Amino acid sequence: MDDILVINSGSSSLKFALFGRGAAVSLGDFKVRYQGHFSGLGGHQAHLVVRDGAGQTLRDELLAGDGKHWGHPEALEELLEWMEARPESGGIGAIGHRVVHGGRDYRAPVLLQPAILEALEALIPLAPLHQPHGLAPVRTLAQLRPDVPQVACFDTAYHATHKAVAQTFALPRQLTEAGLIRYGFHGLSYDYISRCLPDHLGTKATGRVVAAHLGNGASLCAMQDGVSVASTMGFTALDGLPMGTRCGTIDPGVVLHLMTQDGMTSDQISDLLYKQSGLLGVSGISADMRDLLDSTDPAAAEAVALFCYRTFREIASLAAALGGLDHLVFTAGIGEHAAPVRSMVCQGCEWLGVHIDEVRNARGEVRISTDDSPVGVWVIPTDEERMIAWHTARCVAGLGT
Amino acid sequence: MDDILVINSGSSSLKFALFGRGAAVSLGDFKVRYQGHFSGLGGHQAHLVVRDGAGQTLRDELLAGDGKHWGHPEALEELLEWMEARPESGGIGAIGHRVVHGGRDYRAPVLLQPAILEALEALIPLAPLHQPHGLAPVRTLAQLRPDVPQVACFDTAYHATHKAVAQTFALPRQLTEAGLIRYGFHGLSYDYISRCLPDHLGTKATGRVVAAHLGNGASLCAMQDGVSVASTMGFTALDGLPMGTRCGTIDPGVVLHLMTQDGMTSDQISDLLYKQSGLLGVSGISADMRDLLDSTDPAAAEAVALFCYRTFREIASLAAALGGLDHLVFTAGIGEHAAPVRSMVCQGCEWLGVHIDEVRNARGEVRISTDDSPVGVWVIPTDEERMIAWHTARCVAGLGT
Repeated sequence: MDDILVINSGSSSLKFALFGRGAAVSLGDFKVRYQGHFSGLGGHQAHLVVRDGAGQTLRDELLAGDGKHWGHPEALEELLEWMEARPESGGIGAIGHRVVHGGRDYRAPVLLQPAILEALEALIPLAPLHQPHGLAPVRTLAQLRPDVPQVACFDTAYHATHKAVAQTFALPRQLTEAGLIRYGFHGLSYDYISRCLPDHLGTKATGRVVAAHLGNGASLCAMQDGVSVASTMGFTALDGLPMGTRCGTIDPGVVLHLMTQDGMTSDQISDLLYKQSGLLGVSGISADMRDLLDSTDPAAAEAVALFCYRTFREIASLAAALGGLDHLVFTAGIGEHAAPVRSMVCQGCEWLGVHIDEVRNARGEVRISTDDSPVGVWVIPTDEERMIAWHTARCVAGLGT
Repeated sequence: MDDILVINSGSSSLKFALFGRGAAVSLGDFKVRYQGHFSGLGGHQAHLVVRDGAGQTLRDELLAGDGKHWGHPEALEELLEWMEARPESGGIGAIGHRVVHGGRDYRAPVLLQPAILEALEALIPLAPLHQPHGLAPVRTLAQLRPDVPQVACFDTAYHATHKAVAQTFALPRQLTEAGLIRYGFHGLSYDYISRCLPDHLGTKATGRVVAAHLGNGASLCAMQDGVSVASTMGFTALDGLPMGTRCGTIDPGVVLHLMTQDGMTSDQISDLLYKQSGLLGVSGISADMRDLLDSTDPAAAEAVALFCYRTFREIASLAAALGGLDHLVFTAGIGEHAAPVRSMVCQGCEWLGVHIDEVRNARGEVRISTDDSPVGVWVIPTDEERMIAWHTARCVAGLGT
């Protein structure tokens, strides 16, 4: 079977992975052939890194010269030509895209057709900072390789199972009906975690799980038997936990105050809340948790403490959505690698029956809870690209996901 | 000892109570002589109701005539003259005011002096809709009765004990330092509850308590041994739980969306979030919980369900701030009188060890938990005016509060 190319496109970056399908039944069947990214796109040069499935660097170079513009289309063209020229190439059979927003209607991955692409472009006002970047490569690739089917996988879709109480803001009904609801994001990550967890738990049902996707973006998801019940993220990726540079939940009155008392424009407020807040804003030092954990500055410690405090407060709130807690899962950059953060968050959850073994935690073992902890605590690496590859294969084959 | 007049002034209303002090040692020593309100202030007529301490109506009349303007100053003048002319009058020895905001500096009730009043007026940008109404009567009464001492009691002061993690938004440090923090409100109500609770628990320490002030405004407060640890209300009275017409916590991205995509002005957004949201917005029927509980419209049930869901989610979050839960207290209009709401909220807290006796709940008994419930559940009427009278007496006597 032909390979599956996965594209995750940002404002000036483009991440990609090429998967060989193998038997293509379970997630583990998909084998990474190449994985990499372009960065610095949008000017006259860009940086490209490609590694093979073993992590060996195949390319690490600055693309520049002759005044050529390096945007997303040029990067995609370079990528396709390079991949197809590789001696082991088996051809690209399908392309899967990470698309942030599926709105109210797209509740599962979808094979892209022109009318569907237009419908997704109409959702740009819901995520003006992210949706355009996810969709633009679809148009480029439809021109470059018109015969290759493309699939959109949504960060919102996994949360489409939320009940009305979890989805609805206490706003006038007509705004709810117009789509101002809590969508939740990081859905491809939670989808992946929900499918991996039974492997670790053996034959037991997964029960009531809170998964913590703690990366540069951060959120929590409450799952009941693998189905999303609630999330900390809301209408936008600004809500919920504090993040690298995003504020997380704040009083809406703060936004009104910034408008009326400080005279800030919507662009200025957006920049403040998306790019100058979170760990960066509180510490004044860095948006990167590693820098803060390494720092001896009290402001760094304050930022870490606030991040952990908000996280364990929200874990409890999600436990309430589930009526209790059986398992807590950490994933993504901070969740997988920052043992001190896991430790502080779990301290704040001790009253819920969360007891971790600090040696296991420091080692980053898969199960870091003590043997007799009422709540199981797990560290499971997420893999959104593999999840997209799996959905893309299923979707192209006309199978449900 | 002379009586204490308590003033709680709103935009078009003025609530008041006159307390006789008795021994004035405990809260219960203060006896209501008169209690009432002016409503409809600001035009050429106003409505006045006064009852005595037994609830007997002494006045219930429309004040109008001769084109006279009935604003707050005219109401205060009318009130003083009427009270002082009563045969049983002992004279007004002090006046206590409910003032919504004490900012970062006023962490306890304060005897008002001109410089302090100016400092409090400088906080108007923090609560532009409420602070001016609380302070204006101070100036009027200083002219009408210059010799009577006046005391400001703040809705924020009880929460001044919050640690930095509970107070801080993940915003840039300079905004935190400029006062954009979670203040918390309804502090006079929680202060009162915290002082009453030991009476009900006997000699036991009060432990870890979540108090739910559920009225037209609604919030929760986490208390450890009577001291406030966290609150659902934030920088403004818009944050936290959904309320009669206020939205409670919403994604700040919603406010940005209303600005940029819907082109709403800050005044329009403020009106939407403060006056058209909450129970009214979700139900499309009424801001009054009684109307919604009486209605058979599914939209009414949705609004009630959302209110209860958000409340039990936030109770869990506050339990996390306390590291567990020993007691849950309901107070204020909905909390004291809406047994179905208490029941639904407690159902969502069963996993925390909250078990209520539905007969006791329907009767509105003081303790509504079952005898073997791990968490005690209480219905305790709040009395902010009595709390203000007590603080005012202590403050005028130069005693700590």
